[in-house]
Amino acid sequence: MEKIISLHNQHVKDWKKLLTRKQRKKTGTYLLDGWHLINEALTANVNVKSLIITSDQLEEHDDIVTRDFPIYEVTDEIMRAITDTVTPQGIAAEVELPTDQFDIPESSRGAWLFLDQVQDPGNIGTMVRTADAAGFTGVVAGSKTADLYSPKVVRSMQGSQFHLTLRHGNLDEWIELFKKQHFPIYGTQLNPEAKNFRDVAPAGSFALVMGNEGNGLSDNILSQTTSNLYIPMNGRAESLNVAVSAGILMFQLNQNIK
Amino acid sequence: MEKIISLHNQHVKDWKKLLTRKQRKKTGTYLLDGWHLINEALTANVNVKSLIITSDQLEEHDDIVTRDFPIYEVTDEIMRAITDTVTPQGIAAEVELPTDQFDIPESSRGAWLFLDQVQDPGNIGTMVRTADAAGFTGVVAGSKTADLYSPKVVRSMQGSQFHLTLRHGNLDEWIELFKKQHFPIYGTQLNPEAKNFRDVAPAGSFALVMGNEGNGLSDNILSQTTSNLYIPMNGRAESLNVAVSAGILMFQLNQNIK
Repeated sequence: MEKIISLHNQHVKDWKKLLTRKQRKKTGTYLLDGWHLINEALTANVNVKSLIITSDQLEEHDDIVTRDFPIYEVTDEIMRAITDTVTPQGIAAEVELPTDQFDIPESSRGAWLFLDQVQDPGNIGTMVRTADAAGFTGVVAGSKTADLYSPKVVRSMQGSQFHLTLRHGNLDEWIELFKKQHFPIYGTQLNPEAKNFRDVAPAGSFALVMGNEGNGLSDNILSQTTSNLYIPMNGRAESLNVAVSAGILMFQLNQNIK
Repeated sequence: MEKIISLHNQHVKDWKKLLTRKQRKKTGTYLLDGWHLINEALTANVNVKSLIITSDQLEEHDDIVTRDFPIYEVTDEIMRAITDTVTPQGIAAEVELPTDQFDIPESSRGAWLFLDQVQDPGNIGTMVRTADAAGFTGVVAGSKTADLYSPKVVRSMQGSQFHLTLRHGNLDEWIELFKKQHFPIYGTQLNPEAKNFRDVAPAGSFALVMGNEGNGLSDNILSQTTSNLYIPMNGRAESLNVAVSAGILMFQLNQNIK
């Protein structure tokens, strides 16, 4: 076990850089903050590159040193710097990104959520967490959607990345994959000419596509969906938050999936 | 029209103080940021105490000076300081809080959302916006729920405060009011012994109570509900975000309301 007290230590600099997508791509790792996420990662047999812990936490959890990965004892100040949070829990880990995060399979079954140009990390993380709760198989972030492994997305996913399949990819290719297998692609549209979401409850495999917070689905995607769903609004609000819409739709669409 | 260039101007100090609940209570006003909210307020005939606008915006919208409320031209720096946002739209307004926000009526019909100890302003605002979209009549923030008129709640409500009734109050009293009229109170519980939400679609008046992000409904509220709903989770996520749950439940419960 190594003890680090300086913010200028090379390890600290490297961990801090993991806040950026560029560095995560380079190292093939990302940072988990807090016991809950780290326990989920250990249960999922994710490869831990290093465990970072404050002296206080180490005192309370000294059994952690028996683990077979490098452990670094750090100051509270270092922990705040690398996790980018005001009150971190005092434990973090650099873990491996899934090596298949950019792969597209030859066939794919189940209920999937596709994200088209979604920007807000909190919304993205909440949608992944909701997809997990709804029993979805996977989530695909399209090329213009924010990265699934940024600290804010990771925080709001609350460990759901260990329960379902997450992919980054070109949505055109994923849509083609589903269409080839005759699985429906449900778009979403603020348009009463679209299909009332309550009338749709697929029994087999499908994909639901959610769009950008301000602009909804791109025209490119809308031209490829098999049908578009809308949520009838009785009130005077002009729209719903994208994560709320996604939740309402996923818990409608998951009713008859096997 | 008065032109203000100093951050130390008394008006600027007073507007900045509106970021706190204490000051909003004292003045009976709160701040709206951006054209969308201000237009909604004007449509709803809300009393505008002062309109605050940057020179750039004033140039583009010089017809605004014909309005019969005090207008203050300010610098970008002042606008950032009073709105607490990095890129404000350049227009803000101090408007009156509803004078009946703490009142409890003698009878009340319709679909209502009660918030029990909800803490996150973004969640609160999103739930109000969703309640509006779902055609709910009103939202009551219980005494331990964060203030409905804080800048972050106001931002995420997106103007829904002008479409439905918002109240702060003691949930025990509101529950009593609904029970007196024989309207059901639906609690929410992560417990398969609760009622599957899909089996409930009231035709008349009711209240749905959502609880704290981490702890759910308080025991006090749970002991007063007529029944408790749960959302069956097929996946491995332990819970849903409270605003997502509220959305799923409200768009189930609003199906048969008149």
